[in-house]
Order: sequence, then structure tokens, then C-alpha cells
Amino acid sequence: MAGAGLTRDAPMSPEKTTTATCKPARVSLPIADLLADIADDLAQAARIFRTELRSDNPYVAELSSYVENFRGKQIRPALVLLSAQACGGIRPAHHVLAAVVEMVHIATLVHDDVLDEADLRRRTSTVSRRWGNESAVLLGDLLFSHAFRLCSSLDSQFASQEIGRTAVALCGGELRQVGTAGRLDLCEDEYFAIITGKTASLIGTCCLLGAHYAGADSHITRRLAAFGQSLGTAFQITDDLLDLVGDEGVVGKSLGRDVDKGKLTLPLIHALRSAEPGRRAELLALLRSDTPDRHRAITRILLQTESIAYAQQAAGRLVREAVAMLDDLPETPARATLCAMAQFVIARQR
Amino acid sequence: MAGAGLTRDAPMSPEKTTTATCKPARVSLPIADLLADIADDLAQAARIFRTELRSDNPYVAELSSYVENFRGKQIRPALVLLSAQACGGIRPAHHVLAAVVEMVHIATLVHDDVLDEADLRRRTSTVSRRWGNESAVLLGDLLFSHAFRLCSSLDSQFASQEIGRTAVALCGGELRQVGTAGRLDLCEDEYFAIITGKTASLIGTCCLLGAHYAGADSHITRRLAAFGQSLGTAFQITDDLLDLVGDEGVVGKSLGRDVDKGKLTLPLIHALRSAEPGRRAELLALLRSDTPDRHRAITRILLQTESIAYAQQAAGRLVREAVAMLDDLPETPARATLCAMAQFVIARQR
Repeated sequence: MAGAGLTRDAPMSPEKTTTATCKPARVSLPIADLLADIADDLAQAARIFRTELRSDNPYVAELSSYVENFRGKQIRPALVLLSAQACGGIRPAHHVLAAVVEMVHIATLVHDDVLDEADLRRRTSTVSRRWGNESAVLLGDLLFSHAFRLCSSLDSQFASQEIGRTAVALCGGELRQVGTAGRLDLCEDEYFAIITGKTASLIGTCCLLGAHYAGADSHITRRLAAFGQSLGTAFQITDDLLDLVGDEGVVGKSLGRDVDKGKLTLPLIHALRSAEPGRRAELLALLRSDTPDRHRAITRILLQTESIAYAQQAAGRLVREAVAMLDDLPETPARATLCAMAQFVIARQR
Repeated sequence: MAGAGLTRDAPMSPEKTTTATCKPARVSLPIADLLADIADDLAQAARIFRTELRSDNPYVAELSSYVENFRGKQIRPALVLLSAQACGGIRPAHHVLAAVVEMVHIATLVHDDVLDEADLRRRTSTVSRRWGNESAVLLGDLLFSHAFRLCSSLDSQFASQEIGRTAVALCGGELRQVGTAGRLDLCEDEYFAIITGKTASLIGTCCLLGAHYAGADSHITRRLAAFGQSLGTAFQITDDLLDLVGDEGVVGKSLGRDVDKGKLTLPLIHALRSAEPGRRAELLALLRSDTPDRHRAITRILLQTESIAYAQQAAGRLVREAVAMLDDLPETPARATLCAMAQFVIARQR
């Protein structure tokens, strides 16, 4: 499936979305179409990204330029720019911030690949596979450092404070998840605390920075941050769903990793809580086993217990909450695109 | 040997130090004595360090507090504080900055231990050995993030800019070193470029920030930065020497790692350049082999070729250059302690 397109007018959630506060009429998009209006701004952010990572040393330069391959959907920089547009307009600081958030994100991807021992990232060899873990750890550190350096080049200190705070939340969330690995009694609250830290915090900050540096007042800035937080949470639920029921060829990375690493995600938490005893026992046995073909059997149970649908509904609900946060914004094309982005993050197939 | 004491009045370099510009009369110290005057300030920095790393999550809190064990000689926070004292006095920002530089340093240690697959760090199990590489990578990231967050809490953006710039240099230097691993033709210039990035940059920044936030003018601030850079370079040469000729029981970490990882350091570069052909061939054969007992044979050759002495002399020369940078400062106890610190970094046994 090319371009992760969405040609429906509703997200994949079985619940209907409310269109009262947001009317993207008919969402018909690959993500590139959705971002057409900010294509030049994304390109400008990409140039800043590349310039920042330049190095005189051939080895450092080679690795730094390789991460260009990991630029994917560019959801985070797009959210900085669209939030800016929806709140008063894109300014030069937004291009820098769009590069910064993508850099932080790619730093975490490079380190995730070390941790996951993954071979593929966006259909490309991971840094760890190609140059070894040592280089991958250091390259991730270098990307983090560049992000902070770039951030501190802005006129105001606000971005450094927010990116610092966000990076703490992000790494804390990831570490917290590692701390719960293998725990089959993980509850929904803990799951949400983890994904709020590891994913929603950065996406929320993208929207917050977009609004703040466009001159939005504190009420609107808080609403945009809440929009991003809810959208980010829905995004991670969808990511976790794709790891269970996605198509490896479409997703572009190895699947079934969460179960292999002992990480319970929302469908599994739901199934373990609500399945009738026999099925629950079967699921627990599968989770405790390490048979290579258990992935399919687990997915079958999750479909039977309607746990996939449960997670999809949760993501759909979060997207509606996100969209409601945009009510106080003027009805601009940028606001409509933010709404469409919110639909996209849960409808995507990769 | 308790306290890494130094009871000589000259560094371990065979050359004599000049005492014209700096008269620490007779350096007789374990490092703790040297830092007695700033003990309260170091304790204040340690409190800020601990407070910053607090977490509600038990797993994150456990790992964060474990790194307290890695506080070693505290050279970096001490240099922030002593530079401040020598340039006008310690202010509250200095305590924060002392915590920040220690956090950056410990983040790199935690990641180094992942890369080195080391078991011991300051006689304590490494994070990677105790909780696995996944947690160690994330804990390092978390420490970096806290350092940047803490930095951005200061009134002025100068520290964020300098710490961002320094972290880029530091990670770039480490990555550059990985890129040259196994290269037996590494030249001295490349070696110095690597250690300038990975070690001297942060130590230089410690002194720079100490001076700047004490209100020093730009001339003095530059001189302090240069002091730290030279001292940091000497420090790394000494570290590399200890990896070759140190005593594992004293150093408190596994030795011979550089050779095992294919990293050429100054004595080896010197020996490969200057040894007569037979000895050079013998050394090359040892470096290319992976016999477990080659460490002793390599050290023997390095002593025969006077390559250990060569590196000690280089470190001694750098310390004298460092000390000369303090000429324009008033003759205060803090300045004398900075001089003594410079002697200490090359005289230390661990």
C-alpha cells in the first residue's frame, strides 16, 4: 500500500467521530497531500536539520547523514508548523523547532533500535545493524546534543526549557516501560502513564511550541498542548496496534516486538482483564512461552475478545478529545489540517 | 592506595614543572584535602543533582539514585566552583552548573559502560551489568536530558548554549574515536582531535562557565577555558596511560580496554612511529593478535621505547601550559588550588 493513504471519511475506530467542532468534510489523503501547504516549510526545517549535523569528520558526517533515511511521516515537525499556522503564522523560530523535534525523535529511534536489536527501520538497515551498537549509542547522543544546541540558539529560553522538560518525560517513560517488562499484571493506568511519557509528551510539546512561538496567548497554547497530548496518546495506541495486527511489509519494521520484549500494550491488558478464564489462561500461556509462531495465536485471541476494537475505540475517543481542543481557534485551513492529522494518526497502516 | 593521594611536589612527568607562575609550595594531598575549601559547595551541588533526578516511579528512582555511586573525584564540578572562586566568587548558578557538568559526565560514563561491556565502574557494578543495556542506554539519555533541563532553568541562556555546544563536541569526539578503532596508522593529530572532543571540551567548559557566571571579563573567561582545555587533554592522556600501566585494584575499573577495542593511545602511537623495525613488528603482531596475555607484553615494549615517558611528558607540558593561563588572576587560594588540581590530574593513580 503506497503512501499510507486514508480514503475514508472516518478513522479506523468503529465509533463515529464528531464533526461538530471540526469539518474536514472528506479526508482523502496520503500524508504528503495533507502536508502540501507546509511542504516548503518542512523543506526549510530539513535544511536546518542537515546543516546542524554537518561534520568535518568523514565518519561522523556519514552517520549523521544516514539518519536522513529515518525521516518518515514527519508528524512532529508538521505539528509544530501547522500549530503555528493555526495560531498566527509560521516564523523563522518554527523552522528551527521543527528540526529540533525531529532530531529528538530520531535520536530516540536510533537508541530504540539498539535496544530492540532491530534490523530494519523505515525499510532501511538500522544504524546499530550497519555500524554496531557502539556507534548507534553515540549517534543517538550526538543527535540529542545537536537538538539541545540548536534549541539554545533561539532568542528565548522557553524552547530549551520545554525541550529539556520533554526529554526528561520521554526518557523517563521509556525507562518506566523497561521497568515493567515481563509484568503480566500491568494495568491500564500504568500503560497510559508510560505512553504519555514516551510519546505524548513530545507530540504535545510540538503543538505547544508551535502555538507559543506564533504568539498565541496562554489559553490557546495550553489547548494546543492538550490537542498534541491526546493525539500523541492515540498515536502510540495505534503504533502498538500495528505491532500486533499490522502488515510487516507495509509498516516497514519488524513486528511482534512488544510481545517478544514482554511489553503489554492496550489490547493485551484489556484481554487479560476481560477474557473468560479459559481464554485468559490460554493467552497467559502464550505470553509465557517463547514459541516463534505465537504471534498469530495471540492476535486471534485479541480479535475474539474484541480487544483490538477496544484499543481502536480508545484511540478514536482520544482523537475526538484532541479535536475538541481546537474549538477556540479560527476556522482556517491549518486548523482543518490539524483535524485531518488527528484522523490520520489512527487511520494509518504504518 | 587510599584516596589517590599525591605526596610529591612534582607531577609524574619526568620533566620539571615551572613554579614561576604558580606556587602551590608543596602539593601534599589526597583530592579530598584539595577540595576542602569548596566541600560545602560540592555538597550543595550534590543536593541539586539528587533533587533534579527525583522520580515518582520506583524503577526510575532506583536507577537514578544508583548513579550516585559513580561520583568519583568530582573534578568537573570542582573546576566550575574553583574557577568561580578564582574569578570573583561562587554564586547560586555555579552550584547548578556543577550539578549539570557532573550529570553530563555521568551520562557518558553510563553509556561508555554499555559500549565497553564493562563490569566495574568505581568498584561498583555498572548499570548495564546490573539492569541490562536497555536500561543503561535509557538512563544515560535521562541523565543528558536532566542536565539540559537543569541548565535551561538558569536566568541566562549562555549555559545552555555552552553545554549544548560541548555535548556536540563530546559525542562527536567519542564517535570519531569509534570510527578510527582498529586503525593502527592513527596519527598524533587525530588522537589529539579525539581527546579534545571527548574530554577536554567538557573540562574546558567547566572552567569557562565558572569564570563567566562569576562575572569575569571575556579575556579572563577565555584564559580559564584554555586552562581547562589543556588540563582536560592532560587528564585524558593520563587516563589512557592508566589503562596501559595502571593497577586495576587502584584504578577501580577493568584495564587494557583501549587495546582490546582497537583504540590507539599516545604511547602506542609514539611506539609505532619511533620503535626500531623489529620491535615495531613485534608490537604490530601483538596488537593484531587477541591473546589474553598480550597486555603485559605490550606494556613491556612501551617501556623499552620510552613511549610511556613520552606520553607523561606530553601531559606534563600541557599542565604547565594550563597553569600559565592563570597568570592574570590574582594570587588567591582558589588559584593555588586550581594549580594543584592541574598537578593532580597527571599525578593521580586512578
